[in-house]
Amino acid sequence: MEEVLAPLREAVRVQGDVVRQMKEQGAADQDLSKAVAELKARKKILEAKELALQSKNDTVDRVKMEDTLKRRFFYDQAFAIYGGVSGLYDFGPVGCALKNNILQVWRQHFIHEEQILEIDCTMLTPEPVLKTSGHVDKFADYMVKDAQTGECFRADHLLKAHLKKLMSDEKCSAEKAAEMDDVITQMDNYAQQELANLFVKYSVKSPPTGNDLTPPVSFNLMFQTSIGPAGNMPGYLRPETAQGMFLNFKRLLEFNQGKLPFGAAQIGNSFRNEISPRSGLIRVREFTMAEIEHFVDPNEKVHPKFSNVADLEILLYSSKAQTSGQSAQIVRLGDAVEQGVINNSVLGYFIGRIYLYLTKVGLSKDKVRFRQHMENEMAHYACDCWDAESKTSYGWIEIVGCADRACYDLSCHSRATKVPLVAEKPLKEPISFYFVNVVQFEPNKGAIGQAYKKDAKLALEFLANCDECYITDQEKLLNENGEVSIQTDGKTFKLTKDMVTVKRFQKTLHVEEIVPNVIEPSFGIGRIMYSIFEHSFHARQGDEQRTYFSFPATVAPYKCSILPLSPNQEFTPFVRQLSEAMTKNGVSHKVDDSSGSIGRRYARMDEIGVAFGITVDFDTAKKTPPTATLRDRDSMRQIRAQVDELPTVVRDLANGTLTWAEVEEKYPIFEGQENTKKE
Amino acid sequence: MEEVLAPLREAVRVQGDVVRQMKEQGAADQDLSKAVAELKARKKILEAKELALQSKNDTVDRVKMEDTLKRRFFYDQAFAIYGGVSGLYDFGPVGCALKNNILQVWRQHFIHEEQILEIDCTMLTPEPVLKTSGHVDKFADYMVKDAQTGECFRADHLLKAHLKKLMSDEKCSAEKAAEMDDVITQMDNYAQQELANLFVKYSVKSPPTGNDLTPPVSFNLMFQTSIGPAGNMPGYLRPETAQGMFLNFKRLLEFNQGKLPFGAAQIGNSFRNEISPRSGLIRVREFTMAEIEHFVDPNEKVHPKFSNVADLEILLYSSKAQTSGQSAQIVRLGDAVEQGVINNSVLGYFIGRIYLYLTKVGLSKDKVRFRQHMENEMAHYACDCWDAESKTSYGWIEIVGCADRACYDLSCHSRATKVPLVAEKPLKEPISFYFVNVVQFEPNKGAIGQAYKKDAKLALEFLANCDECYITDQEKLLNENGEVSIQTDGKTFKLTKDMVTVKRFQKTLHVEEIVPNVIEPSFGIGRIMYSIFEHSFHARQGDEQRTYFSFPATVAPYKCSILPLSPNQEFTPFVRQLSEAMTKNGVSHKVDDSSGSIGRRYARMDEIGVAFGITVDFDTAKKTPPTATLRDRDSMRQIRAQVDELPTVVRDLANGTLTWAEVEEKYPIFEGQENTKKE
Repeated sequence: MEEVLAPLREAVRVQGDVVRQMKEQGAADQDLSKAVAELKARKKILEAKELALQSKNDTVDRVKMEDTLKRRFFYDQAFAIYGGVSGLYDFGPVGCALKNNILQVWRQHFIHEEQILEIDCTMLTPEPVLKTSGHVDKFADYMVKDAQTGECFRADHLLKAHLKKLMSDEKCSAEKAAEMDDVITQMDNYAQQELANLFVKYSVKSPPTGNDLTPPVSFNLMFQTSIGPAGNMPGYLRPETAQGMFLNFKRLLEFNQGKLPFGAAQIGNSFRNEISPRSGLIRVREFTMAEIEHFVDPNEKVHPKFSNVADLEILLYSSKAQTSGQSAQIVRLGDAVEQGVINNSVLGYFIGRIYLYLTKVGLSKDKVRFRQHMENEMAHYACDCWDAESKTSYGWIEIVGCADRACYDLSCHSRATKVPLVAEKPLKEPISFYFVNVVQFEPNKGAIGQAYKKDAKLALEFLANCDECYITDQEKLLNENGEVSIQTDGKTFKLTKDMVTVKRFQKTLHVEEIVPNVIEPSFGIGRIMYSIFEHSFHARQGDEQRTYFSFPATVAPYKCSILPLSPNQEFTPFVRQLSEAMTKNGVSHKVDDSSGSIGRRYARMDEIGVAFGITVDFDTAKKTPPTATLRDRDSMRQIRAQVDELPTVVRDLANGTLTWAEVEEKYPIFEGQENTKKE
Repeated sequence: MEEVLAPLREAVRVQGDVVRQMKEQGAADQDLSKAVAELKARKKILEAKELALQSKNDTVDRVKMEDTLKRRFFYDQAFAIYGGVSGLYDFGPVGCALKNNILQVWRQHFIHEEQILEIDCTMLTPEPVLKTSGHVDKFADYMVKDAQTGECFRADHLLKAHLKKLMSDEKCSAEKAAEMDDVITQMDNYAQQELANLFVKYSVKSPPTGNDLTPPVSFNLMFQTSIGPAGNMPGYLRPETAQGMFLNFKRLLEFNQGKLPFGAAQIGNSFRNEISPRSGLIRVREFTMAEIEHFVDPNEKVHPKFSNVADLEILLYSSKAQTSGQSAQIVRLGDAVEQGVINNSVLGYFIGRIYLYLTKVGLSKDKVRFRQHMENEMAHYACDCWDAESKTSYGWIEIVGCADRACYDLSCHSRATKVPLVAEKPLKEPISFYFVNVVQFEPNKGAIGQAYKKDAKLALEFLANCDECYITDQEKLLNENGEVSIQTDGKTFKLTKDMVTVKRFQKTLHVEEIVPNVIEPSFGIGRIMYSIFEHSFHARQGDEQRTYFSFPATVAPYKCSILPLSPNQEFTPFVRQLSEAMTKNGVSHKVDDSSGSIGRRYARMDEIGVAFGITVDFDTAKKTPPTATLRDRDSMRQIRAQVDELPTVVRDLANGTLTWAEVEEKYPIFEGQENTKKE
């Protein structure tokens, strides 16, 4: 295997070196992004090959799995009786219970264990908020339309598919093919006009009809609406839950008695009007997210509980490994932070906690990795960013993002609203005055006045309200480009070096004000669920048709089934007694008293991943004290215990305070009822 | 008190008789609705007087309560730093935890105990679905605008306020006043043009500016958006969660192995673009609902578990009591069903369960009543409808609706989609053929063809797909009015008696198909929360400033506080040990190690309704085995127990498996630390 991969690794490494060299030599932006795109393309080829070479046993039969998911109503297309709407799904009883449990474990694992402040904000969001966050201007994809039918396509997807088709033609010359390959590689770099020219050059037509296409236009992916009756307050459905935590920062800080660090979190739905959604639950228009914003003093990015996770061995795919053609490596988390691979121990702590969460809810340890963003992927303000990725039949997909976003978000909203979003740092010295470093813009009022006349006031007001973090960023740009551009009150101002400089001095203050940095772990719940499906779908040995989901008991949609051996009336009181005791113990369960054989009913319960099964049989009804059998879904092994005891045994198994091995030690093994062979 | 109310009761009774008589005599619709409006107005006066006469101790200090809710960030206006948006609220850590707990108890009480099928559908909804449900055409309020500023007002609210002002003028003659009073009484009956004429007649102007107003227009209260990029799929944010259960009926029935009855439920957000929202959490633009649709065979509306709730004594306000000027009465639920006051025992069962739920989460028993809709309030298809109402400082407000909606919803969607939404009824006799009564439309094809030419086919197709429930409804209208009007494929057809008749006959069938009836309990979570706030807000005796919320432990936002007596380092390990053990036991808690006195910190915890409090003091640190104190919020009494034992004690108190009285029996009472006096 390594033999096949070696030349591909080498190709990545070479290109990685090229990029590094270009950066050192200060190459032009355009050349650099071209080289980076080539690097990414080579990486992609390497990764695809790596996946393709892995054993077939490792991949799930997606068609069979999706058939089960649909047939047993885990989830299905929404509004199906009205023809359906693509990208919208409804969760049925099993999917909904699984989702609730995943979220409940999330609350327990993060909110309660970390004492995070959970909030619940509205999805409706007025436009100015999303203007500030950048979503109004930048949350968009290019789209083309069939000029006759109006059908819409994502421009990049369509162009790529078209070129691939052309390249596969035998008549296509090697030279032409190389040129097209280059276009595919550079796809993400094209501006609107370049893309338009390529559509003309390669005469791309509408695939279903062969009609002409309209030129690419930018399509904003937010769902727009209007708040209130007057029609003068445009709003959107939020594209992420994060903004709610930023906007409530001051209230949350006060709730935390003014102290840093603290975490805020939100679980809720977000929306994204995909141009042409596909890949089932992976890319949908309405989805549940769970996001944490951990606010921390930028000078104290050290997590006191990091030692709790330092010994975890996690598959890390560092930026360096990616640019040098290496595979992801299993690394001790403590070492990764110590060696600076992970920027700081707060970020490291969350990576560890995310890993523990994902494996707790049912992802396979060997199918989870953390991939670091390469410098060129990262938003310019982020310090470091790692995605948790899960290996599925779609390849490695991002399921959790974990970014150190520095002070970017608070700083943006603060500038837009002129409300200071800062914390007061407690002084370590018991004195009432303190020296601090102050960084300010020093505007040349004359020059700005001359350039912007009566609008100059707006620019000056804006400059007076900027924080250190933003000023330092702008100073860099000012030095590099000789000018910066600022936006305020809907106007844009270009400021040159003679209009503004940066002034640094020391000042005595009672307290120091700091703009917190934020570490943001952001979970896509639908994608996590989908990964759990793939990682836990199995068929019984020797019977490919008999499938089951090996969900961990903590997240299993039902913890236990209760099955009378037959419709005999004698069993009914025991079934009722067990069901009532389960309810009292908070154990979700499902009674199946239909007429199928016991083996068939077990198989039906296994198919939806019910963790355990109790069968009421003739021994239950005839003997004193009554006993019943308890079956473990994964091993299909059974024990026999008193009816009185079973509900608490199942409760403890479901809570994770008791293991099946312990149950087998305590109670006699039972063999009977079920036959694992197909009936 | 009864003396003051007697004449008001009499006035209601008299008008109730008038309405009854008019109905018996078949009075014209317009006259009848006028008489009903008068009846409602008299009822309202009676009720307002009843409330006003009650003791002042019974009402909450709303200003003080809302100050606490805001200050401690239970909830607050959303987007405040951007100026805020009315009708949108964010829940802070305390409000969010309380809401989660209320929903968790709901799941336990309904979903798990009743084995209801919970589903999770999208909020985005394409237009045709809401066209069928009637929301596109009828979910609207009349609105007027300030002609200059564009400010919008609800027409009925504005007109009423204007008339009240005119009436309060001393120069207003008794005759004029009576006329205006009549307009207020009839407010809900006016059509658009009548309303427009009244605005002109009384020269209503825009209150803040005195400008002219535009004529009233109908404003749909749904938030509209566009799904997908093409702009050809209008959609809305759902105004209720119910539609999801109807649309998934077939999948749910299959999941339930084809058997009736079964319940489906959904918890989620709904949206309502109020013209001018006010009254805080009572009327908002985005809110959480929890709805159940219990599908049942119309011939078997008997609940097997009704006896579990039959002995509950509940405050019922029957339609009859309302039209005869009586007050609500405490009635045994079993008697109400037996006497036919409540239509059937399925509805009765849910009323009982709703009552148990509301009192479990913290509503006062004496501030909850069930009010039956009067015949004229009820949608024409509903058999019976009861609202759970809660007494607050805003008067009695509806918090849960509980309606028997017959087959209306399934029948509508089935006609619109031509997908049969029916259940197959298992045959009691073990024979393969069965006689059933069939009801069908018998169209006169010639007459319809002549009237509608090529569109006739659509009408015929529609008529062939109607179910018994709908046909019987239409037959009644056909007999009453001589014609009916049907809508299909966007067209309207008027059918007269010569075009269509109803045919009844018997037919042999293998199985009988039935359209289930649906009982719909629908919970407004925000309103329930608000009611809990009012019913549990108290001040300590002798200290009006020291307030607390007496939330039941099961829903309290935090179950327990952990407080070191002072910042002494000796206490830290015990605080950490307790916190870790609480987390392990799933007990949400809050550590407060700030420097305030212990009494002050208890007061802060009481203010947000933390149920219990543990204090680590010098005895904890010095003695073996270490002990700490545990305090009950409501009684402020304390006991002393071993640190090891406390986490499970609090867990059991929070689960409701242990009472404070039992704790006091088991552990020694502790008196010390706290001083109930103000510091």
